[in-house]
Amino acid sequence: MPIIHHHISALRAALQPYRGQKNENQSSQPRIALVPTMGNLHDGHLKLVKIAKQHADIVVVSIFVNPTQFGEGEDFESYPRTLDEDVAKLATVDTDYVFAPSIDEMYPVLPPPTSVLAGAITTQLCGQSRPGHFDGVGIVVSKLFNIVQPDIAVFGQKDYQQLAIIKQLVRDLSYPIDIIGASIVRAVDGLALSSRNQYLSTAERQIAPVLHQALQYLAERLETGEQSPQVVQSFLIETQLRITDAGFTIDYLEIKTDTLDSVVSETDMFNVENKNLIILVAAWLGRARLLDNQLVIIG
Amino acid sequence: MPIIHHHISALRAALQPYRGQKNENQSSQPRIALVPTMGNLHDGHLKLVKIAKQHADIVVVSIFVNPTQFGEGEDFESYPRTLDEDVAKLATVDTDYVFAPSIDEMYPVLPPPTSVLAGAITTQLCGQSRPGHFDGVGIVVSKLFNIVQPDIAVFGQKDYQQLAIIKQLVRDLSYPIDIIGASIVRAVDGLALSSRNQYLSTAERQIAPVLHQALQYLAERLETGEQSPQVVQSFLIETQLRITDAGFTIDYLEIKTDTLDSVVSETDMFNVENKNLIILVAAWLGRARLLDNQLVIIG
Repeated sequence: MPIIHHHISALRAALQPYRGQKNENQSSQPRIALVPTMGNLHDGHLKLVKIAKQHADIVVVSIFVNPTQFGEGEDFESYPRTLDEDVAKLATVDTDYVFAPSIDEMYPVLPPPTSVLAGAITTQLCGQSRPGHFDGVGIVVSKLFNIVQPDIAVFGQKDYQQLAIIKQLVRDLSYPIDIIGASIVRAVDGLALSSRNQYLSTAERQIAPVLHQALQYLAERLETGEQSPQVVQSFLIETQLRITDAGFTIDYLEIKTDTLDSVVSETDMFNVENKNLIILVAAWLGRARLLDNQLVIIG
Repeated sequence: MPIIHHHISALRAALQPYRGQKNENQSSQPRIALVPTMGNLHDGHLKLVKIAKQHADIVVVSIFVNPTQFGEGEDFESYPRTLDEDVAKLATVDTDYVFAPSIDEMYPVLPPPTSVLAGAITTQLCGQSRPGHFDGVGIVVSKLFNIVQPDIAVFGQKDYQQLAIIKQLVRDLSYPIDIIGASIVRAVDGLALSSRNQYLSTAERQIAPVLHQALQYLAERLETGEQSPQVVQSFLIETQLRITDAGFTIDYLEIKTDTLDSVVSETDMFNVENKNLIILVAAWLGRARLLDNQLVIIG
């Protein structure tokens, strides 16, 4: 069973002995990995832990429903909190430590006067429909990095924009942390695993895989079809219709270069060298806002 | 002589063996201290190093004239760069490592899209006359903290607002770093040591101690005089006149609670429990902008 800490000082004290300690069979020092989560864990999270364990000796999973990344009227209050079940699941994948702080422990002053802002990359996609969301992510991830001081941190590619923002944060703030992005874990029918899937009714759950299917369809069209703005636009409209016809309300459906570089115009997108494209979608089905994305390999 | 590193990776590699290593005569692990500077070192800086050495086993002094904390038309270009002399001085106070990175090393992308903002505390005093200055301080200090990962960092109280901002940053971002504020080192005539003092002409240098004398005068009046807003206001005006009559142009002269709490009104200032007051001044003399401050102990 993982050891659970609720206090920053206790977690730091527990991790301190590993820092700089030599492994018995290795000349290198033990590596510490962090997997930040909001709890309510599913197989997607457990895959993050498994990846962390492949790259590090000690794995710390944080479980914290972070208030600063929820906006007015969002699901902060109703977000599922299932610590006991989460810890039981984490025990099955060899987690060493769980860090489950209270809000007071993380934010003695709420909101904190200091902010960590990632700039232009946050104003598009999810940042447009959830203003302030990535500012909350920026501060909580900075805090977790400083509390745990890991060598590695693992994030899911389902939250693709978040992953890109964290990579930028690490570069710009010189964090000595390797960021690993883990590919999306899907249900057998293709739906990306998410804690918010449980907001779906049975009927909605059956419709939900259409999102992934539509992105796959669009990716294939882009990979094999003519890459003119007009043709791409018609593929996009066709894909939008597939999604909305199934019953979704689209928040955004966009094609970007995989760095989410906002400098690259849609016309130039296929001409940028050494960049793949990514299709990103956010769409509401009932009271669930679902995210998905699909890489497009331009041959 | 201290060992000089110009690259982040080399400094990190040099510090890694100390982390977690046990001291021979102690059960505790060696402590690393950081003293961030912009170089052109004087006795004030050397005192910071001495204090760092008292609290830590390994002292890293960073020397970096940080472009992001200088505004348009400020003295970034002309700021004195004297690395060889600085290293020689640091050798006299037992400095272990000097970190002197290039701008490219610190900012692969300049300006960096990510920012670390300290909020309301930055909009007053120096933040008002130097917009963006503390945003530059915020990012460079965050980077230095992440690069060095020190246990302790020492800053001078001459930059009182900067020290208060860094304490807030450490609290809000959960940096595991003890911040030590070192009291001001003064010339025999009372002028606070500063690299910018060398911008003064010989005549200006003789006038310059008036700034400290005026603050001392005001502190004595506040400590012994009647603490009504009217009386305090008249002391303030008298002090302003002493400073301007000597030839200074005042940027600001303010009395604050020592936490720089902007919530406390001037009328309430003397009634706040457990808080001391501080007088802060910034004033131009020729082409030098001089800072000074003076604590007021309310009995």
